[in-house]
Amino acid sequence: MTTIERPPAGEFSVIGKPITKIDGLSKTTGQARYADDLKLPRMAFCRLLRSTRPHARILHVDTAKAAALPGVYAVITGQDLPIRYGVLPVGQDEQALCSDKVRFVGDAVAAVAAVDEETAERALDLIEVEYQDLPTYMTIEESLTKPGEPIHEGKFGNAHRAAALEFGDVDAALAASAHVFEDTYFFQGTTHLALEQHACVAQWDPAGKLTLWTSTQSPHYVHKELARALELREDQVRVIAPHVGGGFGGKLELFQHEAAAAKLAMLTGRPIKAALTREEVFYCHRGRHPVLMWVKTGWTRDGRITAMDFKSYVDGGAYMSYGAASLLYTGALQTVCDRIPNYRWQGVRVLTNKPPCGPKRGHGTPQPRFALECHFDAVAERLGIPVLELRRKNFVRPFSRTVNYLRITSCGLEQCVDQVARASEFEQRHGKLPYGKGVGFAVGAYLCGAGLPVYWNEMPHSAVDLRLDRSGVVQVSCGQVDIGQGSNSMLVSVVAEALGCKPEQIALVSADTDVTPIDLGSYSSRVTFMAGNAAIQAATRLRGLLLEAAADELDVPVEELVLRDGVLTRRDGMGRPLSFAELVRLAEARNGALAASGSYKPPKLAGPFKASGVGPSPAYSFTACVAEVDVDPETGWVTVERVWIAHDIGRAINPVLVEGQIEGSVYMALGEALMEEQVFRRGVHKIPSLLEYKSPTTFETPEIHTFLVETVDPEAPFGAKEVGQGPLLPVIPAIANAVHDAVGVRIDETPITPEKVLKALETQREGKSPRYGPTRLPEYAFPRITRVELPEEWRGGYQGNGRP
Amino acid sequence: MTTIERPPAGEFSVIGKPITKIDGLSKTTGQARYADDLKLPRMAFCRLLRSTRPHARILHVDTAKAAALPGVYAVITGQDLPIRYGVLPVGQDEQALCSDKVRFVGDAVAAVAAVDEETAERALDLIEVEYQDLPTYMTIEESLTKPGEPIHEGKFGNAHRAAALEFGDVDAALAASAHVFEDTYFFQGTTHLALEQHACVAQWDPAGKLTLWTSTQSPHYVHKELARALELREDQVRVIAPHVGGGFGGKLELFQHEAAAAKLAMLTGRPIKAALTREEVFYCHRGRHPVLMWVKTGWTRDGRITAMDFKSYVDGGAYMSYGAASLLYTGALQTVCDRIPNYRWQGVRVLTNKPPCGPKRGHGTPQPRFALECHFDAVAERLGIPVLELRRKNFVRPFSRTVNYLRITSCGLEQCVDQVARASEFEQRHGKLPYGKGVGFAVGAYLCGAGLPVYWNEMPHSAVDLRLDRSGVVQVSCGQVDIGQGSNSMLVSVVAEALGCKPEQIALVSADTDVTPIDLGSYSSRVTFMAGNAAIQAATRLRGLLLEAAADELDVPVEELVLRDGVLTRRDGMGRPLSFAELVRLAEARNGALAASGSYKPPKLAGPFKASGVGPSPAYSFTACVAEVDVDPETGWVTVERVWIAHDIGRAINPVLVEGQIEGSVYMALGEALMEEQVFRRGVHKIPSLLEYKSPTTFETPEIHTFLVETVDPEAPFGAKEVGQGPLLPVIPAIANAVHDAVGVRIDETPITPEKVLKALETQREGKSPRYGPTRLPEYAFPRITRVELPEEWRGGYQGNGRP
Repeated sequence: MTTIERPPAGEFSVIGKPITKIDGLSKTTGQARYADDLKLPRMAFCRLLRSTRPHARILHVDTAKAAALPGVYAVITGQDLPIRYGVLPVGQDEQALCSDKVRFVGDAVAAVAAVDEETAERALDLIEVEYQDLPTYMTIEESLTKPGEPIHEGKFGNAHRAAALEFGDVDAALAASAHVFEDTYFFQGTTHLALEQHACVAQWDPAGKLTLWTSTQSPHYVHKELARALELREDQVRVIAPHVGGGFGGKLELFQHEAAAAKLAMLTGRPIKAALTREEVFYCHRGRHPVLMWVKTGWTRDGRITAMDFKSYVDGGAYMSYGAASLLYTGALQTVCDRIPNYRWQGVRVLTNKPPCGPKRGHGTPQPRFALECHFDAVAERLGIPVLELRRKNFVRPFSRTVNYLRITSCGLEQCVDQVARASEFEQRHGKLPYGKGVGFAVGAYLCGAGLPVYWNEMPHSAVDLRLDRSGVVQVSCGQVDIGQGSNSMLVSVVAEALGCKPEQIALVSADTDVTPIDLGSYSSRVTFMAGNAAIQAATRLRGLLLEAAADELDVPVEELVLRDGVLTRRDGMGRPLSFAELVRLAEARNGALAASGSYKPPKLAGPFKASGVGPSPAYSFTACVAEVDVDPETGWVTVERVWIAHDIGRAINPVLVEGQIEGSVYMALGEALMEEQVFRRGVHKIPSLLEYKSPTTFETPEIHTFLVETVDPEAPFGAKEVGQGPLLPVIPAIANAVHDAVGVRIDETPITPEKVLKALETQREGKSPRYGPTRLPEYAFPRITRVELPEEWRGGYQGNGRP
Repeated sequence: MTTIERPPAGEFSVIGKPITKIDGLSKTTGQARYADDLKLPRMAFCRLLRSTRPHARILHVDTAKAAALPGVYAVITGQDLPIRYGVLPVGQDEQALCSDKVRFVGDAVAAVAAVDEETAERALDLIEVEYQDLPTYMTIEESLTKPGEPIHEGKFGNAHRAAALEFGDVDAALAASAHVFEDTYFFQGTTHLALEQHACVAQWDPAGKLTLWTSTQSPHYVHKELARALELREDQVRVIAPHVGGGFGGKLELFQHEAAAAKLAMLTGRPIKAALTREEVFYCHRGRHPVLMWVKTGWTRDGRITAMDFKSYVDGGAYMSYGAASLLYTGALQTVCDRIPNYRWQGVRVLTNKPPCGPKRGHGTPQPRFALECHFDAVAERLGIPVLELRRKNFVRPFSRTVNYLRITSCGLEQCVDQVARASEFEQRHGKLPYGKGVGFAVGAYLCGAGLPVYWNEMPHSAVDLRLDRSGVVQVSCGQVDIGQGSNSMLVSVVAEALGCKPEQIALVSADTDVTPIDLGSYSSRVTFMAGNAAIQAATRLRGLLLEAAADELDVPVEELVLRDGVLTRRDGMGRPLSFAELVRLAEARNGALAASGSYKPPKLAGPFKASGVGPSPAYSFTACVAEVDVDPETGWVTVERVWIAHDIGRAINPVLVEGQIEGSVYMALGEALMEEQVFRRGVHKIPSLLEYKSPTTFETPEIHTFLVETVDPEAPFGAKEVGQGPLLPVIPAIANAVHDAVGVRIDETPITPEKVLKALETQREGKSPRYGPTRLPEYAFPRITRVELPEEWRGGYQGNGRP
């Protein structure tokens, strides 16, 4: 059930309407082709030999027997792909096939191309690898303290990235506070579980062009890194994303199988398919970082926050991936929901001999949000102030600045809180339900795209090209990739509205680096904001040409014309309406072929200090959530009965798609809150399959009550902000807080398993602190703190200045 | 061997260089995918049931047994595809599957989709069709005189299109002439013989989108007609041309198998492949019209033409195809090589129960050019004037107007004649070689695209979109389709030169109606001229942005900068050169994503009379040819020993590609001159296979000496005119004239077979007229003549006014 709190109705034809997803029918009927559905003549199949050791030097690889197996076309090793790559400029630490050492069980060592997958598998068994085992680091503690050869070379050893920032004067503020509280939390690592496993097909045209069809969230970054890994010019590489069956951050980089398939295509002259098994997907990972966190806050007597001190210990797995950003995100957005006048954050990312962690829905922010929202709930309890009363004293205001240089524009957080509080009767029920029943509250905020691209500061982040065909077809070409979130459908709505055509007139092509313009990819909830703004710019240019041509033809001022739903009429009702195709012909005769390009580059929002690029966004979404749980004190089993969730969407371009994203976020949060974890034994993932890795099903999914708050952000396309990631954030702590409300114990570590609940209930019965979670921090000396003062003029807040 | 007569060398980096065809390696190594190479999951196969009767009413079609055959997914008949279509607005006379009657052996009646082609074939055998035979019309004579039900309904019966135009006063001019001569000629029908047989794959997305991959010369026209035939909106149809293995005019329309495959895809939900056998290609045809021609000319005493009277009787086969244009082309270009002050043309196209004729290389002009050039050779003989002397008195001048309203711009005809005459020593050898050896001379001219598109007067005919990627990739998107002629490579050269990048930086996508902008297709030799001009327009816009950004950055005027070969330097040699990618980044930061669209629409050149749209072109190419033959008087066998051919190309963008087109034209002309013919017995094609339909091989191909004349047309892209079709025109009459020079007989009918040569030698020995050819015209009353006067001011000629 969705409720929309909407400003006075506009004049929209398409925006706000629940139009059908443009690929819905083809996906539900099985017509949509994913990467693994592609077949090309003479195609061969690639399988990768993956390390069985968590950390070992490669002494020798013997591929002779494998290469001699009938049906094998080629066998390659790290010697064939020597170049290191990695999407971040600071993290060029990966190799398609390892040649010096392996760093986790699953790291690729060799690749085979054969007539079929079975033959390729048999060939893998014939490859002999001689390893020399090295010390392994499987936890944050081990990485920081255990002696031995670090996982990567570098002056900081396994603590390879660290940062320390202070805004204001935290120590002074804490000293002056009426109350000071501190807590420690641990957020377990989880993986993305996209339904479609990674797969690709590589084809080499001997004229010097490589084409890679691959299941990716960013053809752009894969394009760049693939060219680097293969030592090709970028114009020799074309990356195309077919239909993608989900990503959630797990398909944002160049993967070993992609580079290997491409190299094998070049060597054999055959198209090569590489499709990962589900087990391999668990090892490729790039999922949620496990994070150990410590938070300390100061409060005035009446419940205002005076300062926050926060530490993050981030378990990165074996490679960088986007981990430099993930680390910074564990400290960047603490200030976006609550007004925190003094803020210090120190973080370190350590390397471990586990699959590399990277971005997963919420990218580095669900972990601190879990810590914060649980901490605030605990603070309210300690202060004896009802939690909503405490929270309402501290929420950020629209059009303001945070202490750490973030610009907040539209903000519907208070409306979101009001919606869920009213609907769930939170204030009437919190603390008053029978034992075993509880309600919990939390909020969250998320980016609408990051302020900085990975590669280059001045580049457009998204572009959309439009072309009008005289038959009335509107061709939309855009680099963004629809990974299931509906971004193609979003663009259809935006273009139809901005141009004045019907959605069904639009033919959209996306995600092909030889055909479509720049788009950084589907991550950081950036597509609607950035590609949407680019589309509006292009459509507005063409709409102007159409209206001018019509005004000329009909001899009336442009202001007298109405163009919507593919029909041009006069405001005075005079004359015959013109069809869109007629309009295109008129404008075409005046202007030549009708095409326009629009692009978007976010405003420069980074502050004057290092690492200030992570955190700024042209706008933030806000979410509030109440979860209602039933906890069985006998078994420790937590059942989430109902979830009320309100999201400041800015404007819902398509309410059905927005609701889908929110429900998907609730479902994913439920898994992370209660079930999912990445656990290892002797370096080996214990549960790398959908049978054993527990994730909720429809049976576990609660009743979800969704509320949309439309604040109409001034810089967003038709006012629309993100929805793909933000709604996940408050759900996890809301469940944890509800568990506390139900049975009085605090589980400060995800997932909240029955075992942990039972243990906490046991300590409660023993009269000890009724909680389960981490109790101490590892020994680590953070870098020297960079202190940043906010300019005086920003303290008074900020007023939005309309569209960029 | 190619010789280029070139104006003073320009400053070009790419234009004029023999760069490798961009698809050359992938084609020669078998990597290129043609339509029949495509495979999609669950794909089924379509075969068509074709009529065994040349003209019959369909009384009943019983598909029950076929539909019941295991492995058959669907069987359709005309009831399933009732809509008539046809690319010309005047010729909507085709149906994908006939429902009322069949009009030639090979007309499709039903279609089957089955699990494989064999099953589909077996199903065809189970379809029962009850026919009622109707009178058949197999020749022009029969169509004009035989009574009975005409092939199509319409008030003119089988003489379905006719025209009669007069420019000046022909009767008065002939009456005042010192000499009047007349001759009759017949040009036999021939087919295209593209190496790749027609094939397509249709896929239906249940969301309402049909995609057709098909071997076509015009995705644009197939798009329009397919939407019509399937009763879909145009935006529901996407047509993509993969690599195409030759067309020559035979792949310019919607074909029955394309519409049937599409319909079957919609009905079965499966991708459907339809690939024609070579025999079916002979029946689909659309090849050269057989034309019976009569020409009468008047001459002054010193050999100047005073008037020409010309009649064409055109055998159209069973449908219109592009026949309305083909008919007009048999009368339109007579005036383009020779100054003819008074000109009358009357033509009629008749329907016959044979495969429909349409456009083939030269489209309607090789037939009259054969008649004219043979006639002029005969006139020279009659007047006793050396043929070159006679011809040189009459050639058109550059920048002039013809009597029938055609604007001639650049014209290198005289230079072409000089080149071939000098190299072949024609004047020293013509009439003076030993018996059995001969040299023959002829000229020709052809369009650089037609002045009018099929659909709509005001529309752009070609557009090219360019987009610059910050990695330095130049994306080129264009609707034109490379059918082997090298138009993709041409665009790479043009864009690289106009923009200043390297050819290898260009990523080109073409021929996809959902992705690429408008282009009418590869016909009428229009692509280089029109898409080339569109590309220059787009590139010039972007080049301007790049130079402005660089000027700004380097703080020097734009005039001080040189951008070529992907590097920007300063004229004064100061400073560091900037790479293309650096330049793109600078311009991108100023302007947003860099994209530009260029388009081309030819100037309005049609005269103020009906049918004046056929003939005008923004420019004409000119060709001169000398052929040297050896005729064996014992066997009648004609061997072409050497061909000298000079072509006014305007400017050779890529001399290797130009030479390839000329050599291909010579080869094709050789086949038409000596071997190829479409012959029928009881309605059935006698030789519908590559084994029996004689066509030259490399063994028959003569030494070819090619000369390129560069006149640098002011409106053409870098001055470049066409080469794909024009060079074919003079070769056929040059061979016929050489046969006369060798043995003294005139073969006024193609092909010049040994049998015809022997018969003519026999009549020569009998002392009768030493010729073989038609002797009388059928009875037919042409329509009333439209008389058109050229405005007085045009009689003085015309001066080009530079680029449009």
